[in-house]
Formats: sequence, structure tokens, C-alpha cells
Amino acid sequence: MIKNKFGLACKHFREELGLSQEKFALSIGMDRTYYSSVEAGKRNISIQNIKKIADGFNISISTLFHYTEL
Amino acid sequence: MIKNKFGLACKHFREELGLSQEKFALSIGMDRTYYSSVEAGKRNISIQNIKKIADGFNISISTLFHYTEL
Repeated sequence: MIKNKFGLACKHFREELGLSQEKFALSIGMDRTYYSSVEAGKRNISIQNIKKIADGFNISISTLFHYTEL
Repeated sequence: MIKNKFGLACKHFREELGLSQEKFALSIGMDRTYYSSVEAGKRNISIQNIKKIADGFNISISTLFHYTEL
């Protein structure tokens, strides 16, 4: 399902940056427990938070979903 | 801003299908007034509703955002 696949894609790009969930969440001004639940596929995340995460990875939302939908 | 650009992309793909907002919303089981406000850039839409819209256009979410981010 889309929430789970999106969470796995976030985990992939975060690990590429070599950051912990906590450090990445801090870098984008997002609550650590909220971000953790996104990676776990538990959040019906909104477009504005998707944008915040993609920006944190320095990629487009399109690229983030390209990986999500592989 | 992302909500506005996303709304314009939805409008683009819906018009490519030659459907009214009402008919498209009906085809994906979404409330007509909700879908209308998405196109108007007024909604912080969730990933599950983004998926529902992309499926209605028969495109990937990645393709929908590729157009959004042009």
C-alpha cells in the first residue's frame, strides 16, 4: 500500500544521507516521532509534509515517488 | 506553492480526459466539492487521496508530480 511504500522510500533516501531519523527530522523541522511513523508507513501524510521531506533529501517529489513506485 | 501547483496539474489531466470536475470526482468516489477545492489549491491533500486521483487519471503519482513540478 502507498503509505508503506512511501515510508520505505523515505528510509532509503535518509540512509543515503547517512542521517538518523532524529537528525533528519531535526534538519527539516519535523517532529521526530511523527517522521518515524511516516517511515513505518503509519501516516496518511499530507502534500505539504511530503514536500518538506523531499526538500530535506534535495530531490523533487516526483523523484521520491518514482522510487516509491518501483 | 505546492498545493496550487498540484491543483493545476490535476486540472490539466482531468481536462485531458474530457471530464467535468463532477464526473471525474464521481469516477473515483471522491466528494465533488472536495475535489473542486483540490484543483483550486485549497487542500493539504493526503497521500491516499493523491493516489486515488492519480489512479483515476491512469498515471503514476510520480508522473502527476512531474507535471506539478514543471
